[in-house]
Amino acid sequence: MTSRGPIRLAMVGGGPGSFIGPVHRMAAELDGRIRLVAGAFSRDATKNAEAAGAWGVAADRAYGDYRAMIAAEAVRDDGAEMVAVVTPNHLHFDVSATALKAGLHVMSDKPATLDLAEAKALAGVVAGSGRLYGLTHVYTGYPMVREAREIVRRGDLGAVRKIVAEYPQGWLSRPIERDGDKQAGWRSDPAQSGVGGCIGDIGVHAFNLAEFVGGVRVERLCGDVSTVVPGRALDDDCNVLLRFAGGARGVIIASQISAGARNGLKIQVYGEKGGLTWSHERHTELTIDWLDAPSQVLHAGAAYLSAPAQAASRLPTGHPEGFVEAFANIYRDFADAIGEGRADAGLVPDIAEGVRGMAFVETAVAASRAGDGWVAMPRSLT
Amino acid sequence: MTSRGPIRLAMVGGGPGSFIGPVHRMAAELDGRIRLVAGAFSRDATKNAEAAGAWGVAADRAYGDYRAMIAAEAVRDDGAEMVAVVTPNHLHFDVSATALKAGLHVMSDKPATLDLAEAKALAGVVAGSGRLYGLTHVYTGYPMVREAREIVRRGDLGAVRKIVAEYPQGWLSRPIERDGDKQAGWRSDPAQSGVGGCIGDIGVHAFNLAEFVGGVRVERLCGDVSTVVPGRALDDDCNVLLRFAGGARGVIIASQISAGARNGLKIQVYGEKGGLTWSHERHTELTIDWLDAPSQVLHAGAAYLSAPAQAASRLPTGHPEGFVEAFANIYRDFADAIGEGRADAGLVPDIAEGVRGMAFVETAVAASRAGDGWVAMPRSLT
Amino acid sequence: MTSRGPIRLAMVGGGPGSFIGPVHRMAAELDGRIRLVAGAFSRDATKNAEAAGAWGVAADRAYGDYRAMIAAEAVRDDGAEMVAVVTPNHLHFDVSATALKAGLHVMSDKPATLDLAEAKALAGVVAGSGRLYGLTHVYTGYPMVREAREIVRRGDLGAVRKIVAEYPQGWLSRPIERDGDKQAGWRSDPAQSGVGGCIGDIGVHAFNLAEFVGGVRVERLCGDVSTVVPGRALDDDCNVLLRFAGGARGVIIASQISAGARNGLKIQVYGEKGGLTWSHERHTELTIDWLDAPSQVLHAGAAYLSAPAQAASRLPTGHPEGFVEAFANIYRDFADAIGEGRADAGLVPDIAEGVRGMAFVETAVAASRAGDGWVAMPRSLT
Amino acid sequence: MTSRGPIRLAMVGGGPGSFIGPVHRMAAELDGRIRLVAGAFSRDATKNAEAAGAWGVAADRAYGDYRAMIAAEAVRDDGAEMVAVVTPNHLHFDVSATALKAGLHVMSDKPATLDLAEAKALAGVVAGSGRLYGLTHVYTGYPMVREAREIVRRGDLGAVRKIVAEYPQGWLSRPIERDGDKQAGWRSDPAQSGVGGCIGDIGVHAFNLAEFVGGVRVERLCGDVSTVVPGRALDDDCNVLLRFAGGARGVIIASQISAGARNGLKIQVYGEKGGLTWSHERHTELTIDWLDAPSQVLHAGAAYLSAPAQAASRLPTGHPEGFVEAFANIYRDFADAIGEGRADAGLVPDIAEGVRGMAFVETAVAASRAGDGWVAMPRSLT
Repeated sequence: MTSRGPIRLAMVGGGPGSFIGPVHRMAAELDGRIRLVAGAFSRDATKNAEAAGAWGVAADRAYGDYRAMIAAEAVRDDGAEMVAVVTPNHLHFDVSATALKAGLHVMSDKPATLDLAEAKALAGVVAGSGRLYGLTHVYTGYPMVREAREIVRRGDLGAVRKIVAEYPQGWLSRPIERDGDKQAGWRSDPAQSGVGGCIGDIGVHAFNLAEFVGGVRVERLCGDVSTVVPGRALDDDCNVLLRFAGGARGVIIASQISAGARNGLKIQVYGEKGGLTWSHERHTELTIDWLDAPSQVLHAGAAYLSAPAQAASRLPTGHPEGFVEAFANIYRDFADAIGEGRADAGLVPDIAEGVRGMAFVETAVAASRAGDGWVAMPRSLT
Repeated sequence: MTSRGPIRLAMVGGGPGSFIGPVHRMAAELDGRIRLVAGAFSRDATKNAEAAGAWGVAADRAYGDYRAMIAAEAVRDDGAEMVAVVTPNHLHFDVSATALKAGLHVMSDKPATLDLAEAKALAGVVAGSGRLYGLTHVYTGYPMVREAREIVRRGDLGAVRKIVAEYPQGWLSRPIERDGDKQAGWRSDPAQSGVGGCIGDIGVHAFNLAEFVGGVRVERLCGDVSTVVPGRALDDDCNVLLRFAGGARGVIIASQISAGARNGLKIQVYGEKGGLTWSHERHTELTIDWLDAPSQVLHAGAAYLSAPAQAASRLPTGHPEGFVEAFANIYRDFADAIGEGRADAGLVPDIAEGVRGMAFVETAVAASRAGDGWVAMPRSLT
Repeated sequence: MTSRGPIRLAMVGGGPGSFIGPVHRMAAELDGRIRLVAGAFSRDATKNAEAAGAWGVAADRAYGDYRAMIAAEAVRDDGAEMVAVVTPNHLHFDVSATALKAGLHVMSDKPATLDLAEAKALAGVVAGSGRLYGLTHVYTGYPMVREAREIVRRGDLGAVRKIVAEYPQGWLSRPIERDGDKQAGWRSDPAQSGVGGCIGDIGVHAFNLAEFVGGVRVERLCGDVSTVVPGRALDDDCNVLLRFAGGARGVIIASQISAGARNGLKIQVYGEKGGLTWSHERHTELTIDWLDAPSQVLHAGAAYLSAPAQAASRLPTGHPEGFVEAFANIYRDFADAIGEGRADAGLVPDIAEGVRGMAFVETAVAASRAGDGWVAMPRSLT
Repeated sequence: MTSRGPIRLAMVGGGPGSFIGPVHRMAAELDGRIRLVAGAFSRDATKNAEAAGAWGVAADRAYGDYRAMIAAEAVRDDGAEMVAVVTPNHLHFDVSATALKAGLHVMSDKPATLDLAEAKALAGVVAGSGRLYGLTHVYTGYPMVREAREIVRRGDLGAVRKIVAEYPQGWLSRPIERDGDKQAGWRSDPAQSGVGGCIGDIGVHAFNLAEFVGGVRVERLCGDVSTVVPGRALDDDCNVLLRFAGGARGVIIASQISAGARNGLKIQVYGEKGGLTWSHERHTELTIDWLDAPSQVLHAGAAYLSAPAQAASRLPTGHPEGFVEAFANIYRDFADAIGEGRADAGLVPDIAEGVRGMAFVETAVAASRAGDGWVAMPRSLT
């Protein structure tokens, strides 16, 4: 790290009641390279002040409005250098674009925007801004996910033949959005979430992970995106068949009505010589089953791991890190890139992945609604 | 058990080099209720004699031909009462029909026949024979699969919403059929296997298990049945989206090119209140994840299990049984039904399930070849 | 196998209500190399006849008394060639000695005898008999236990430094012997079991496994052998510290009051370079954790296993065998040795291991009663 | 939280090369309730400045000496209110006592002191100081450990009968202290570590956890504390039999030469009705095996957990926290107690537990050296 002191961060959203806001705060500050200095945490003034107080933000830098915040911080000598976007989806574009145009770097929660058109527009803004844009596909921050990616890239498995990504959750098994659950509320509201419910919330993580680890891009898909809980306005279950460029097959199974499931993201990549499995429930492990040899289990923090995986652990093997630390790896890489003045942030997902994610959601939803079978991803993206 | 002594069994196929023949032999005899007395194990006279010798079958009851065997045994006072059919698929129909017509009960390896038309024809033969017909969908014989079925039937999970059945194997990752591997040879030969390769060999197990445990029937499907290893004549990978009568969603993922996978059949059934998971790799366990309560793990042999599950264990909890014992449960139920003169064999899969399995294979293969999206199962079967 | 036909087996004990009798029967006959032809299954004539009927033994070869049986079978042309001893412990010596003296081979359930003096005496009888004596320490029959032994013997782990063997059961958490439980009854009766309760029933398995896999012999021990359930006449919990010849440390933890535990035998052997773990609950797997490399998981039935492990599987990898098959491996090896006229039965535990087991039980119980610390195993045995 | 702003923390030790220093820093600051403001991180001025810079500590509050630091901070208006002690063991007493006497609260890494005499003396200092003293037995901070404790306290398992605590590590399998490994160096140096090597480093965690979860106190013990790697000055392997007040049996197995083991702390508590198992390798889960009912698996973050367990999670179930978060739970509880002016910090281990830990180490080491069998814990502590 340079001696310049921590990167200064402002946050939009994340006030009391938010799930992901506190995660961004803890993750950003965990390694001492970023410090939260300003925020527009909530439109409710009391909640806004409460968040600022709890997180050590000066009262006069708790802004009632993100536009005001960006404008003010952009001209302070000690103003924020980057913005964390942790609002519901429908605000992602405007917050991100406003910050970038004001010369601030942006770390956005996923998905990048409300829809594909916005994502493409945002890509243009990023390109013209000279600033870094990162997307917190948090699972790419886990050490063993990065190890998995390296194993595939090195060719250890041979050519990739099949990828299965599963993401079962059960917390929307009942229509809790009607009982005032805040998290469920905006996620099942098309105005705030876009056309994708489950597929936009978690299906897109599975999609991203499949491409991140597998190193191949989805070319065509055939989706069953549907709503199981009566009356819900967006999908809560999606099952998608995939064909990747190069011919590999794939399946994405994502659901928020898989009652009893917690947050069981899992990916399996099969090549010619073996297959690897990473499961979020055992996130410190990576299993490789070989065609002709004993299975291997690799453990986070071990000295035999690849450099990218080792760099993603703070503690010796056997001392588990978790979700916040995976998030923090993304922030740390981002801070390093800012600190070093680099034009890209390495493994941190960027706007190109944001665009692909939105394309996946829109393509799968549209195809499923039309009752079509196989459809192609937008040509420009394959 | 009655005092009548063991049921007398004849076997067709299963000679040296067979995988499943010895399993049928061990399973049939395990509980002392069935005894192998005759066989047409191989068309190779030496191998035929070898099998007879190894298994205690009198030399004069090792027949060179299954027709001759059935004819001879049917008229002996101490002749075989039932036939085990363990040949490649293309012979299933004729062996089964011949035996049934001669008044013998039939236990057939799956799939029931080479194609759907044969299966329907066989259903007619069974109906007219007054004899029992069983199909060794072995996984239905595991205690915890039977417990899973009971849990769903009792309504513990509420209405079924989603079923995911996965069956990864990796042993056909290379074209070993070209190197003389006998098991791979007939399984990848349309003349012996029918239109389905992987889907007919193991996809049909996953399909059967989904309906057996889930208690719902597949109505429509959308399949990606394909050949990954160049030059292979039949599919070796299949991924199928399902819709069940009543509205539940489903996914079947079966593969024989999932390199490194052993025999990882797994089923998950999600209802309104929770989801259950059974994995062949942990076959003595059944996990239920509840929406609102701690997860449960049920163990084979325990006193708290349902009657059908308890009846499927021979040993106290903690003393694992296995594949042969699951097979033996099917044989034991079948022997009991014969011994008691019953018209059906309870939980033993029968020709109706055989017909549905063939319909699944043909429907999925045809739809996939045509590049169609969703297609319906044959109307008569839904 | 030779063409001589199956080895003829007689059984003593094992009638209705027995747990281990049926296991011996299934295991002995599983591979077609042994056939049960005679028995003194129960002193209750009705039960004796019932067992004979169920297992295909001719009525006139169901004897009321083991002495009569051995005398009669020893002189028949088609008489039994070996005897399975499945009675409570106090009869093991006399049945075994009588059979051996009559020229019959003996396969005995463990422990070998009621006490160490008997075990030594039996060793003398075996030595003078020219017949084979086997002891069903069943866990030595599991493929992955045999693989573990090979790995240690090959030196893959370097010198052995520590062995931990755990065997928790919970079925004696309540005084069920007072409620007429037959299995609990004789196991907690010193007249039938000897001085060891839990330690003689399952502690001795852990001891045997430690020496079998670890390839080192216990030299000294320090035991806490105690009775937890008030009023029970024998121990139901034992924890023993070990020192092996050569200096390795060890711990045995065995218990029948570990409420909720099923049959969780587990062994860990640590060497200079890594440690291996085998757990009965995952008996088809063997895990090796290396000091400097990824962990490995070996799977039963795989082609990369050692010859002894491969020989202990009947089915391809991924098709689990179980407790009966492990038992059957011991019977099969024994049958092969008889068939080939060999003077020893290879991996089958013999009377020397029986003597060591009894020495372990007596030494640990005596030391614990005296409140001593460390004591030595009998000198002749170390 | 009160509006008073974060508690101000100073750290002693923890500079570059430290494992546990950064953990304390991340844990203390994670929840925004504590802020690191001063430190005597290293006696090496360059390293001291480096740590201060990396962690946002003002240069003039990076002190070269802990005595100077405590003296200076104690009189500043914005001076540190608490001290984190993360030095090797031999300094624990003096740093802690100096800070307490200066009116600062103390959070010390374990063990509390170099030996029992010091620990007792420190207990006197704490008692006279009117300040809080906490000990980072980090494993008590895991949500499912706290749940386990609650389950035992509620009596769900009935009376506790047996406790097994295992703590295998393998990182000292080679004499790496001779190769300059800093962590290994001081841990194997009696001058810095005291009489216990492995037993003082990790055995004491297992001891603490057994008492914390089991709710019973060790009364007598029988230990085998030994040195496996030739030339090492302190023990690297220890196996200890325990008797608890009230009669429960116990075993502690701790080792740093269990090659291949990472950091596998595990505890099992058996009561009359069932047993619970918590393993650090699966730290978000708690398994309860019941004598008469299906096993249960409880998951961190779930709504059905007890209040203490729920309070120890920041994220929804399925979003794993880890070692740092467990540490942070201890700091958070401590900060709450300071903020509320309470006289004790609830679940945070205190000096009484520190004294017991030192008594365990000294008693076990002394008994093992003398070759004794069972010895009693010091009377005043039982």
